Amino acid sequence: MIYLDNGATSYPKPAAVINASLNACKKFSFNSGRGGYSASVKTAEKIYSVREKVGSMFNYEPQNIAFTMNCTQALNMAIKGSVKRGDHVIISSLEHNAVWRVVNHLRNDGIIDYDIADFCFDNDETVSNFERLIRQNTSVIVCTAASNVFGVRFPIDRIGRLARKHRIRFIVDAAQAAGIISIDGVKDGIDILCAPGHKCLYGNMGTGFIAVQEKIFLETIIDGGTGSESTNPNQPDFLPDRLEAGTLNNCGILSLGAGIDFVNSIGMDKIFNHELRMTDILYNGLSRNENVFLYCPKPVKSVSAPIISFNYKDYSSEKTALLLAKYNIAVRAGLHCSPLAHKFFNTLDRGTVRLCPSVFTSARECEIFLNTLKKI
Amino acid sequence: MIYLDNGATSYPKPAAVINASLNACKKFSFNSGRGGYSASVKTAEKIYSVREKVGSMFNYEPQNIAFTMNCTQALNMAIKGSVKRGDHVIISSLEHNAVWRVVNHLRNDGIIDYDIADFCFDNDETVSNFERLIRQNTSVIVCTAASNVFGVRFPIDRIGRLARKHRIRFIVDAAQAAGIISIDGVKDGIDILCAPGHKCLYGNMGTGFIAVQEKIFLETIIDGGTGSESTNPNQPDFLPDRLEAGTLNNCGILSLGAGIDFVNSIGMDKIFNHELRMTDILYNGLSRNENVFLYCPKPVKSVSAPIISFNYKDYSSEKTALLLAKYNIAVRAGLHCSPLAHKFFNTLDRGTVRLCPSVFTSARECEIFLNTLKKI
Repeated sequence: MIYLDNGATSYPKPAAVINASLNACKKFSFNSGRGGYSASVKTAEKIYSVREKVGSMFNYEPQNIAFTMNCTQALNMAIKGSVKRGDHVIISSLEHNAVWRVVNHLRNDGIIDYDIADFCFDNDETVSNFERLIRQNTSVIVCTAASNVFGVRFPIDRIGRLARKHRIRFIVDAAQAAGIISIDGVKDGIDILCAPGHKCLYGNMGTGFIAVQEKIFLETIIDGGTGSESTNPNQPDFLPDRLEAGTLNNCGILSLGAGIDFVNSIGMDKIFNHELRMTDILYNGLSRNENVFLYCPKPVKSVSAPIISFNYKDYSSEKTALLLAKYNIAVRAGLHCSPLAHKFFNTLDRGTVRLCPSVFTSARECEIFLNTLKKI
Repeated sequence: MIYLDNGATSYPKPAAVINASLNACKKFSFNSGRGGYSASVKTAEKIYSVREKVGSMFNYEPQNIAFTMNCTQALNMAIKGSVKRGDHVIISSLEHNAVWRVVNHLRNDGIIDYDIADFCFDNDETVSNFERLIRQNTSVIVCTAASNVFGVRFPIDRIGRLARKHRIRFIVDAAQAAGIISIDGVKDGIDILCAPGHKCLYGNMGTGFIAVQEKIFLETIIDGGTGSESTNPNQPDFLPDRLEAGTLNNCGILSLGAGIDFVNSIGMDKIFNHELRMTDILYNGLSRNENVFLYCPKPVKSVSAPIISFNYKDYSSEKTALLLAKYNIAVRAGLHCSPLAHKFFNTLDRGTVRLCPSVFTSARECEIFLNTLKKI
């Protein structure tokens, strides 16, 4: 199989990730920090070491990393935990349903109002689009680091500065960025960073995290046992306990630790460069095929993630994907859970076919894809 | 290690569970139902087969099983998704913080009021205690099937009938029951069943589910991409999509499938009988030790789960557990995230030491534990 659906989840997982997961199932399947016996204590140390790895990669304190089932859960915790009745929220025009459906639910419930800031290929314009929408009661800006459909990136450092200037909480969805694009929570002014563990960080599916800067307080959407302050009828005030109710996914978390080690051992920049070389080959080939419709310029390092969307002939995006599937090529078609992005790029009617390489994608695989496309 | 902390999570996991998890990491780490390629379709089939296994074990429709990170998340979705402003909720006096902190949060927010129905060793009395608290605006009863501290069980079938009679939604926390005690969602009148996958069902940590009877509608606490109705700004109305936003924990879910197969292959009843034989040995030995304080009668099949709580000499429960840990015996001490239960049994000051055998616990291990206890 030629797998170009790494935007959904990276595949294959590195051998070290699979081993770490297996090892965790066998040796570290204990409730961390809730038992005094050696196996529980050792498990807690292992889990903590992954908090350190995440914290170190994105510049957050290890104890301020809480593990979630996926990026979506983290975004729900971040957004719903940040707003109060009467607040105004700004999101970008390229947000995933993990953001759009959340703010929409809050609006339906009469809690917030929200506006959508348009993406622009000119960063100055993008920042202005956010600034123009700020109101007296704007409490939160949510922005994706990179579109999961079109690969274009937002200048999150500049939006972070804007948010800080206006004392607005800044939440970033790093679903397609965490692990390839350098993110510094402090420098970039990201109050809350949400990310999956199973995409560019190469951990198991079922992993994600929410990383919170110091002194940021969140209301909880999930309450329960934390093994701490058990007589307190409320969630503890401190992290990560406040955001981690119930039993954690140890196998997943330790696989994520191995995934981060894998990324660090190669180097985030080197992985990014490799993937851009692959999108280069893909984009150049697609550009030369007169039956292909492309929607964005070729991905380049400073402003893109390695993601390409296209359509073919007059086919629906699903038809193209199914025809490619017959040749054992895995791509994803449709709206990719991001109707806002498709509305913005005028592709809501047919969706797009999406190509996302990973560190394991080879130039030869990209060539085979391009040649196969010509046959369908 | 002699592991008697299976109430936290079962250990070891059966070989078939570890293999299923490993196999899933290698072969079924694709986004199920969101890609048209064969690997994604096969993954979706595998995930669906686990919904069937869960549905079949507890009598729910497979599509009405939604997978969660743990039982706590499921309980939050069930309770918060069921209430509206002005509602009254009844919980039992033995609820875990996964229930108590949830209803408390809702009360703090001015959404609901709640009352606590006392457990009684006489089932008639217990049911009366619930009935007495029912008001005009009581919309939900939440009850644990078995106390995670003391192992005593609630007559959930009778409480289910009571709830049905009064048209009250009935939510059951099956954290310590699912996999050993037969539960029939339809017959027992359980509108929503919440359970972990990693305790008596022997799946990986990081697994749980919410099982919902037909025609039960839930508001969502987590919104996001579902790969379905992507242009809908709200969560889809249908299950499981409505309750499954974002990427699932495939490795965990497929391990849970293997765990259920494991339980079925031995037989739930046989496992339960084995564990009761172990609690028999433990309880008899503890009863003969004059330094031991026990709080409940010996576990018997009809009214107990195989869980024993005790204290030793004038030691804090933590001291006892730490002294046992030196002999490589793993037990849990403290409040077990269930202050209500300790308040009820008057053990809030020192907590208890908890013993939970699994299918893998041997009589010899129980004897070693009893002999070791005499030495500390």
